[in-house]
Amino acid sequence: MTANYTSRIDRVVQWMKREALSALLFVDEEGRREPAIRYLTGHPSDAVLFLLADGRTILIPWDAILAGRVAKASEIIPYTSFERSLLTAFEKIAKREGLSGAVEVGAGTPYPLVGELAMRLPGGKIVCRDKGVDRALLDLRAVKDGGEIERLKSAARLTNDLLGELEGYIAGSKERTEVDVALFIEQEARSRGAEGLGFASLVAGPARSWGIHAFPNYSGGPFATAGMSILDFGVVVDGYPSDVTVTVLRGHLSSRQQLMVELVEEAYERAAVRARPGVESYDVAMVVDDLFRSKGFSMPHSLGHGIGLEIHEAPFLRTKRESSVPLLPGMVFTLEPGLYDETEGGVRLENDFIVTDQSTEVLTTARILRLP
Amino acid sequence: MTANYTSRIDRVVQWMKREALSALLFVDEEGRREPAIRYLTGHPSDAVLFLLADGRTILIPWDAILAGRVAKASEIIPYTSFERSLLTAFEKIAKREGLSGAVEVGAGTPYPLVGELAMRLPGGKIVCRDKGVDRALLDLRAVKDGGEIERLKSAARLTNDLLGELEGYIAGSKERTEVDVALFIEQEARSRGAEGLGFASLVAGPARSWGIHAFPNYSGGPFATAGMSILDFGVVVDGYPSDVTVTVLRGHLSSRQQLMVELVEEAYERAAVRARPGVESYDVAMVVDDLFRSKGFSMPHSLGHGIGLEIHEAPFLRTKRESSVPLLPGMVFTLEPGLYDETEGGVRLENDFIVTDQSTEVLTTARILRLP
Repeated sequence: MTANYTSRIDRVVQWMKREALSALLFVDEEGRREPAIRYLTGHPSDAVLFLLADGRTILIPWDAILAGRVAKASEIIPYTSFERSLLTAFEKIAKREGLSGAVEVGAGTPYPLVGELAMRLPGGKIVCRDKGVDRALLDLRAVKDGGEIERLKSAARLTNDLLGELEGYIAGSKERTEVDVALFIEQEARSRGAEGLGFASLVAGPARSWGIHAFPNYSGGPFATAGMSILDFGVVVDGYPSDVTVTVLRGHLSSRQQLMVELVEEAYERAAVRARPGVESYDVAMVVDDLFRSKGFSMPHSLGHGIGLEIHEAPFLRTKRESSVPLLPGMVFTLEPGLYDETEGGVRLENDFIVTDQSTEVLTTARILRLP
Repeated sequence: MTANYTSRIDRVVQWMKREALSALLFVDEEGRREPAIRYLTGHPSDAVLFLLADGRTILIPWDAILAGRVAKASEIIPYTSFERSLLTAFEKIAKREGLSGAVEVGAGTPYPLVGELAMRLPGGKIVCRDKGVDRALLDLRAVKDGGEIERLKSAARLTNDLLGELEGYIAGSKERTEVDVALFIEQEARSRGAEGLGFASLVAGPARSWGIHAFPNYSGGPFATAGMSILDFGVVVDGYPSDVTVTVLRGHLSSRQQLMVELVEEAYERAAVRARPGVESYDVAMVVDDLFRSKGFSMPHSLGHGIGLEIHEAPFLRTKRESSVPLLPGMVFTLEPGLYDETEGGVRLENDFIVTDQSTEVLTTARILRLP
């Protein structure tokens, strides 16, 4: 699978020209991940990247051997050449390149760091703003290109194969623990060629499924015993994830549990029907919000989110108008309505969708599983 | 196991008085973790926390049910009460409490957010600085209290039990893959009661052990075949981790591989001897740096780091004077000398240590394992 780094960089450079920027500075480090570096060079993590107005990229990786093997950049300089200091690297590159004018950094850049960088750019200024480079890159990344769609579909196929095995595994015994199920997923994903999991799987048996994000994410407790159990996971293929949630129902449900399940399935269907090309993401979210509210329920999380180099990225399907965007061909996102009750437990159904020119197609096959 | 939240808060409040602060604001969210919230309230993640000068804590969790079960705070208000908006929460609490004067936020706070917060605090100012509240809390957290030491020792004991099983598992077959070993560790850790792993295990067979942080962190490739394999993992007990690295040697080694192994073992011993109470962390790191340099090698990472609510925290054992601190009783840290070569592979040995009044004790039992 090839990636279109050149065309991605071209589009960012066009944006830089409109914004009159002389360079962009990206930093990816522990505690502050920056997917733009992988998006623009293929280098997976732990690096500094300069993108200059002429389209050149200067990658400064922690692991130069890894970069030499996987990254595409005009120049790769080991971080050790700058005494493993971001400020030293910035100062030296800025000087060598004669940087002046405006250099933009991500909106997540810590406040004190902006000041430190500015001191090292005497001929220019540091720009750090909320709807600048991050927004531009999120918008670009929200519409996937061919290489990305290929990877996302591979992740979805792997997930669907795995879901088939998983349903049998869960149904095959009443003695599974949460950790059994979590490790079954990881074993299956890795052995089928996944790079890893998209996030720490959430596996919550009936006693813990009231949590949106179970804590701890899985335990030695029982899974898929009587009641409602939730299982939320994703696999990564070459940097791109899937994200699905299965709810497992076992035995007799209370009338409130039955109502919750029916509402979630109804909400899922209504959202999937509404999420056509050109429709506002806000409007899709409101379909579900209206349904739940009309029955006296409310959902404590958003309806869905884009997936890509980040597990949560644009488009966001929320009941907030300010984050709304029209759904465009090439967007890939989740729909994941859910309801939770501290005594009854929780139910959620989540699959991944891709917007095409004419319609929206579901990529994954998670469902609410009913066991006797 | 109980935690000493009150005494921790008291110490932070004393520091706030010296710094003339009227409140601290902590935010923990995806992509920007803030261990101070768990340290001060027990709430594990996804929350906003105000600490006021009178010692009151106002916790605003995403998951109010979870907070109700595990957190200690003067007041717990669901995030949904503020429309799940940090700025709304800040504005309303600041108004209700009549906040004025200086409110400090963490040094990692994004530049644009500092401005947004300042606009919502007309009677005061937002402080965001490099060596402020983060440094104060890191310094506090670097010296563990009784409850923390108990948890760290539990994590170490669990790790040592697991290492015993693991050595047998690895030696028992020449057919283990990296993913086999990674999942064996997770299965053993979870089934022995770990909350989870401290970080994604790094399991790199001889073909990939040249990387400091193997990417992907484990694969379907072979582990512990001829040459040098690296295995770096940790387990978490009630929020507190271990962090160990085992190198597995199999078969005949080249003379350069042998030299690398001997140097790492020698460096480890010298560092362990040097790391007594009162010694500067810089001086410990220099013992290893001097040894490696005298033989024509250099280490591409630091010698060690504190472990606690974060897997990398103070004290840092680095060859940089500015991050040096004297090793104090109650500090818990790793020593992890390693050498890497793109063709020969890598070797690293890592264990966890605690500084006591008179000496420094090793907590874990990782070693370089030689297999025929």
